[in-house]
Amino acid sequence: MHTASASAGDPGGTWVTRASLDTSGSTDKRLERRVVMSPLLGVLGGMGPAAANSFLASLVEHTPAGRDQDHIATIVYSDPETPDRSDAILAGGPSPVPAMRRGIEFLDRSGCDLIAIPCNTAHQWFDELAAAGSTPILHIVDAVLTRITHDAPQAGAVGILATDGTIHSGIYQRRLAASGHSVLDLTDLGADNPVMAGIRAVKAGELDHARAYLTKAAEMLVTRGAQGLVFGCTDVAAALGATVDGVDVPVWDSSEALAIACIDRIRPDRPDQALTAGEEARENR
Amino acid sequence: MHTASASAGDPGGTWVTRASLDTSGSTDKRLERRVVMSPLLGVLGGMGPAAANSFLASLVEHTPAGRDQDHIATIVYSDPETPDRSDAILAGGPSPVPAMRRGIEFLDRSGCDLIAIPCNTAHQWFDELAAAGSTPILHIVDAVLTRITHDAPQAGAVGILATDGTIHSGIYQRRLAASGHSVLDLTDLGADNPVMAGIRAVKAGELDHARAYLTKAAEMLVTRGAQGLVFGCTDVAAALGATVDGVDVPVWDSSEALAIACIDRIRPDRPDQALTAGEEARENR
Repeated sequence: MHTASASAGDPGGTWVTRASLDTSGSTDKRLERRVVMSPLLGVLGGMGPAAANSFLASLVEHTPAGRDQDHIATIVYSDPETPDRSDAILAGGPSPVPAMRRGIEFLDRSGCDLIAIPCNTAHQWFDELAAAGSTPILHIVDAVLTRITHDAPQAGAVGILATDGTIHSGIYQRRLAASGHSVLDLTDLGADNPVMAGIRAVKAGELDHARAYLTKAAEMLVTRGAQGLVFGCTDVAAALGATVDGVDVPVWDSSEALAIACIDRIRPDRPDQALTAGEEARENR
Repeated sequence: MHTASASAGDPGGTWVTRASLDTSGSTDKRLERRVVMSPLLGVLGGMGPAAANSFLASLVEHTPAGRDQDHIATIVYSDPETPDRSDAILAGGPSPVPAMRRGIEFLDRSGCDLIAIPCNTAHQWFDELAAAGSTPILHIVDAVLTRITHDAPQAGAVGILATDGTIHSGIYQRRLAASGHSVLDLTDLGADNPVMAGIRAVKAGELDHARAYLTKAAEMLVTRGAQGLVFGCTDVAAALGATVDGVDVPVWDSSEALAIACIDRIRPDRPDQALTAGEEARENR
């Protein structure tokens, strides 16, 4: 299967092997430029500057590997000048699409077999980005949905800690509703929304303040009825790690979910490998 | 200045601006492929899987930035199948040079203005890699030397915590001797060398064991007369962080030094910017 929009939730999807690429005339140009022979993961980073790093750390942690050579080959393209995604959605700021398209085209030309975009807000423009090249892009919300379905299939309402831009884009609401989950957020609080205050504190490097705001936001979402929480912004996980103190519902980090989905897609022969490897890495820490 | 081997320690080196690139006929092909307009840093990663991540984390931490868009554009190429560097040096294992050359050629073709290789052992083959393209490569030992000269110019003997392969390659000994420093290591201990035991423990994910071995190694080097310590392997910093408990000499992490040197080279207008930004980031943590 080699479509522009790959779904992490599709258990029937098989990996594009080198052999299948070799027989397709349309991929000749990509093969010519290809430098790595194993499946190659492209990452569109730079949104923000540390987002790709946490994604790559999850990728290393969850890849079952006994030695360096067992890890996944990657090309990471980060153009931090990409205009702010939330500004574009909420305030009519300059569009980030041309810069992101250049990145996708670069990864496509470089012979990547699969692309990940560790930025939730960027997925507002998923369809345009998927159309920018022939390399399939894994949708971050599909990756989260796969984790929710695995860990807590009965969860009704799920709380999302994300930028106003991501909430406003509707990417979580649409994809989670299709699987029977409702989505809770705090955007009705406007300027008092502790999620945005927390994300701004992370970007300013004030992690203690950030933790206080984001923990409060998590508690408020649970009070409103959330049966699970999604960290739908890399900055949230940067401040809180993988859990929220005092909150007793499952928590999913979208960036980690995306890494797990990429591993499962690239190594489809080993179901649940990424979860097991991640647990072992944590136990040894 | 646009030579194959850039030196981090060269204070007279100026950055290759876009304007100067535009007037050079030899760079036409690179410009054609170029997708990012600001200075673009290429990173040869994958040696080991987490090395590029810690380098990139240092790069973000030390870049003076008030917003996402102030950070440095990067392309990171990681081929984990690159054969083991130490094996090649010490045990006649397969050469990593062809895989590394493919990576350098890729970064060169992609229009990078400067290349960093966050792997000390790989610098054994620095001259061959620098000859693989026209993009200057910053030598990691020059970057360390710049930090030693800045922080402790009077340091005589410097202890190196690195793989046997790096020690055996002589890259530290040669470049530090030229600046009047001698180099101490523990390779004379053979199988009892706690540095290699510590590095193996990091690779196996056993960080507590790793810390114990590497702290012991640091203490032994200070007892032997080291007036400063260099973490000459990314795995060492991964276990110990930026300091060694109970050791009272300056410590330099080669990966962080390389990140600082890249920032100083890409933004030469702001001396000591990277050091100041890094200190501020730590205070806010």
